[in-house]
Amino acid sequence: MQIGMLVIGTELLQGKQLEANIHWLGQFLRPFHRQIHEAIIVDDQIPAIHKALEKLYTSCELVIISGGLGPTPDDVTKEAIASFFQKPISFSSEAHEVATKNYKNFHRPLPDNHTYSTLPQDFVALENSQGFAPGLWFHGNCKMLLCVAGVPREFQALISDHLPKLVGDQIYAQEKLNLINIRTKGIAEEKIFGELCPDLWRELQAFGEVSSLPQTLSVDIGVKTQKPEKEIKDFIMATELAPFIWGFGFETIEEAIINTAREKKLTIGFAESCTGGLCSHRLTNIAGSSDVFFGSIISYDNSVKKALLNVNDETLKNFGAVSAECALEMVRGARTALLVDAAVALTGIAGPGGGSPEKPVGTVWLGVSVGNKIYTKKFELRGDRENLKIRFSQVALFELLDCLKAI
Amino acid sequence: MQIGMLVIGTELLQGKQLEANIHWLGQFLRPFHRQIHEAIIVDDQIPAIHKALEKLYTSCELVIISGGLGPTPDDVTKEAIASFFQKPISFSSEAHEVATKNYKNFHRPLPDNHTYSTLPQDFVALENSQGFAPGLWFHGNCKMLLCVAGVPREFQALISDHLPKLVGDQIYAQEKLNLINIRTKGIAEEKIFGELCPDLWRELQAFGEVSSLPQTLSVDIGVKTQKPEKEIKDFIMATELAPFIWGFGFETIEEAIINTAREKKLTIGFAESCTGGLCSHRLTNIAGSSDVFFGSIISYDNSVKKALLNVNDETLKNFGAVSAECALEMVRGARTALLVDAAVALTGIAGPGGGSPEKPVGTVWLGVSVGNKIYTKKFELRGDRENLKIRFSQVALFELLDCLKAI
Repeated sequence: MQIGMLVIGTELLQGKQLEANIHWLGQFLRPFHRQIHEAIIVDDQIPAIHKALEKLYTSCELVIISGGLGPTPDDVTKEAIASFFQKPISFSSEAHEVATKNYKNFHRPLPDNHTYSTLPQDFVALENSQGFAPGLWFHGNCKMLLCVAGVPREFQALISDHLPKLVGDQIYAQEKLNLINIRTKGIAEEKIFGELCPDLWRELQAFGEVSSLPQTLSVDIGVKTQKPEKEIKDFIMATELAPFIWGFGFETIEEAIINTAREKKLTIGFAESCTGGLCSHRLTNIAGSSDVFFGSIISYDNSVKKALLNVNDETLKNFGAVSAECALEMVRGARTALLVDAAVALTGIAGPGGGSPEKPVGTVWLGVSVGNKIYTKKFELRGDRENLKIRFSQVALFELLDCLKAI
Repeated sequence: MQIGMLVIGTELLQGKQLEANIHWLGQFLRPFHRQIHEAIIVDDQIPAIHKALEKLYTSCELVIISGGLGPTPDDVTKEAIASFFQKPISFSSEAHEVATKNYKNFHRPLPDNHTYSTLPQDFVALENSQGFAPGLWFHGNCKMLLCVAGVPREFQALISDHLPKLVGDQIYAQEKLNLINIRTKGIAEEKIFGELCPDLWRELQAFGEVSSLPQTLSVDIGVKTQKPEKEIKDFIMATELAPFIWGFGFETIEEAIINTAREKKLTIGFAESCTGGLCSHRLTNIAGSSDVFFGSIISYDNSVKKALLNVNDETLKNFGAVSAECALEMVRGARTALLVDAAVALTGIAGPGGGSPEKPVGTVWLGVSVGNKIYTKKFELRGDRENLKIRFSQVALFELLDCLKAI
C-alpha cells in the first residue's frame, strides 16, 4: 500500500504559513512501518487539485488530503473531490449529525449558514474533535481517500481518531523493517564518511538501506533493516565513530536531558542571554519536564545580568558581556538564584548587529555547572539570527546532556 | 512564468525532518509578486525524482529543486537531473573552482574524495556561501532549472545570492498585484463571515481575489488586488470588523510589539511559567529586540516563583499557582525584579497532566501590568502541550500589544 498526501492551501505556497502536517504524518506512520510515498502541495484551485489527485490516485492506494474544508468560499476541497469522482454533493443526515456533534464538543449550536451537512455521494463523514469541519472518507476500486482539515490540531485529531480504524490491519506494512537511527554530534557528515570511517557506508549497507541526514550541529545515520537493533548498535560502537554518538533511535536531545536528569535526581535551570528563552522553551516542550526543570533567568539586558545573576559591573566593563568571565558569573548566579543542581549560561551575539572583529556574530560563550564542576566553552557558529539562536541552544543542550551523563 | 518546486528528501516523508524551504521561498518571492505554483516532495530515488520533474517541467517555466546534493551515496539529485536531461556528468574546472571557493569560505582545503567538481553538461555551478555543495543552474528551451542544497541556511543563501541575477527582470510578475493582509483577532472565521459581516466576502471581491486563513487565535483575510492598499483599508475600517483588526500587512505580532514599545520608549519583560520561555524566545527572534526587551524570569517551579517573583506561600496554598492571585503577584514581581515598564505573567496548565475539573488543561491566567495599570485575565484554550504553549504565548503577546498601544 503506497500512501500519498495532497496538501491544499494557497497560503502555503505564498509563504504565509508553514506546512507541518507532512512531518507529523511521517511520524504517525512510523510505528506501522510506513512512510509517505509522495506529497504534493497545490493552491485552492479545482483544476490544480484535480491534476494532483490524478497523479496520486494513480500511484497510491491511500491518498490523504489536508486543507480547504473550512467555511469560506476559498475552501473548495469538497467540491473538487466530488467533481474528480463525478459524485453529486447533497444534504446528508449522517453528515448533519456529525457536524452537530462537532459543534456540541465546543458547546455551540450548529449555525444556520454552514456547509458541513453536505457530502459527496458514497462518502462517509467523520467526527472532528478539535474543530467543526467533518472529515471525509471514500473507499472504492481498492483505493482509499481520507480528506481532513488542514489546521494541525484538527488534522492530527482526525488522522489519529479515524485512519487506523478505517484502514484496518492493512495499515501495517508486511515487511517490518526497523528504522535504526544513529545520532552523532561534533563531527561533519563529510568527515565521518570521508576521513574517520571511509568504509562505514559500505559496511552498514550489509545490514540494509543506509541514509545520512545532517541535523543542527549533528548528523543522524539511518539504517532501514530487518536485522535486530542490537546487532547494528554492537557493530557501530566498535567503530571509530563511537565517541561521537550521543544516542540511538528517535529520542530527542530534550527528552534525553529530561530523562537523564530524572534518573539522576538532578534539577536544571538556565541563564539565557542570546537565546532569549529558547533553551527553556525546548526543554518545557517535553511533558513531565517540570519534574526536573525548575526555571531560568533570561538576562537579555546587562541590568538583569547584574540584578538577578550577580554579574559584576567590573566584569562587564573589562571583558564585555560576551566573555568567559561573564558566562562563569552567569552560571554561578543561576545556580544560586534558581537553586538547581545543574545550569548552563549562554552569552553570545545572534546578530545581525553587535558583532566585531574580535567577537563576530555567531560567537557564544557557555558557562556550565553541574555539582561541583564549573567551566566555560566558546563556540563560533554561522547562520542568521533565528538559526544562530537554534544552534546556540543546541550546543548548550548537548553540553548539558554530556554533563548530566558524566556526573 | 510559473514557478514549481521539487523537494527531495526521504527524511521529510518519514517524519524525521520538517520541510521549511517552501515557506521561506514563498516569502522570498512575495516582493516579485510571485508565488510557488506547485510543490512536490519525493524521496531520494531517481525514478520518483524523474516523474516529479516531468510533471513540474511541463507546467512550469522555472523549477527550483532542493536537497540531495550532499556528499553521501544517498544524495542522488545531480545524477537524477543529469539522466533526466540525458546529459553526461564529467569533471568541470569551473565547478572545481566554485567548490574550492566554498571550502575556502570555511577556511578549509578541498578534500580529496569529494563529488563537487563534477557537473552535468551545459549546467553552471554556483557558489554556496553557507556550505560546500555548489548550486546547479540550467537554462534551455525557455525553461529554467535551479538546483540547490536543502539545508535551510544553504538553501536561503543560494536562492538569495543567485536566483534574481539568473532569472533577470523576468522574475517580476507583469501583473503587479498587491497582497493586502487584514489581521484580525478575538473572533472566529465563521463568525466573521457568518454573523458579523455576512456580505464582507462579496464586498471584498469587488477589490480582487479574497482568501481567509485561520492562524493561531486569529484570522488573516487576504485580498489580491490591483487597487491601492489605502482603498481597502478605508473600506474595511468602516465595517463592523474594525474593532477586531490588530494590523495590516505581514508585520508579525512580535514585530508589532517591538516597534510599538520602541516608539513609546517602554521596556518589556515576562514572568513565564507554563510557556517556559516561549514568549521571550518569540520576541527575541526579532533583530533589535534588545532595545526594549530587558529579560524574563521563567518560574516553572513554585520555588522560583517565591524566590525571584516574591509570590507568597499563602497565595500558592490558598489559590494554587494557576490563579488570578498568583498571576497578579508574578507580574508585580517581574516588574520589580526586571525593572521594566511593561510585563506579562503567565501561569497555566499545558498538560497532558496537571488538569482538574475546576482548572482543566488549557487554563491560563495572565497578569498584565503597564505603567500604573495592572489586571488579570483568564483563557481556556484547547490543544496538545506544544500547541497550548503556542496559544498561551499568543494571548499574552496580543494582550501586551493592546496594552502598549493603549498607554
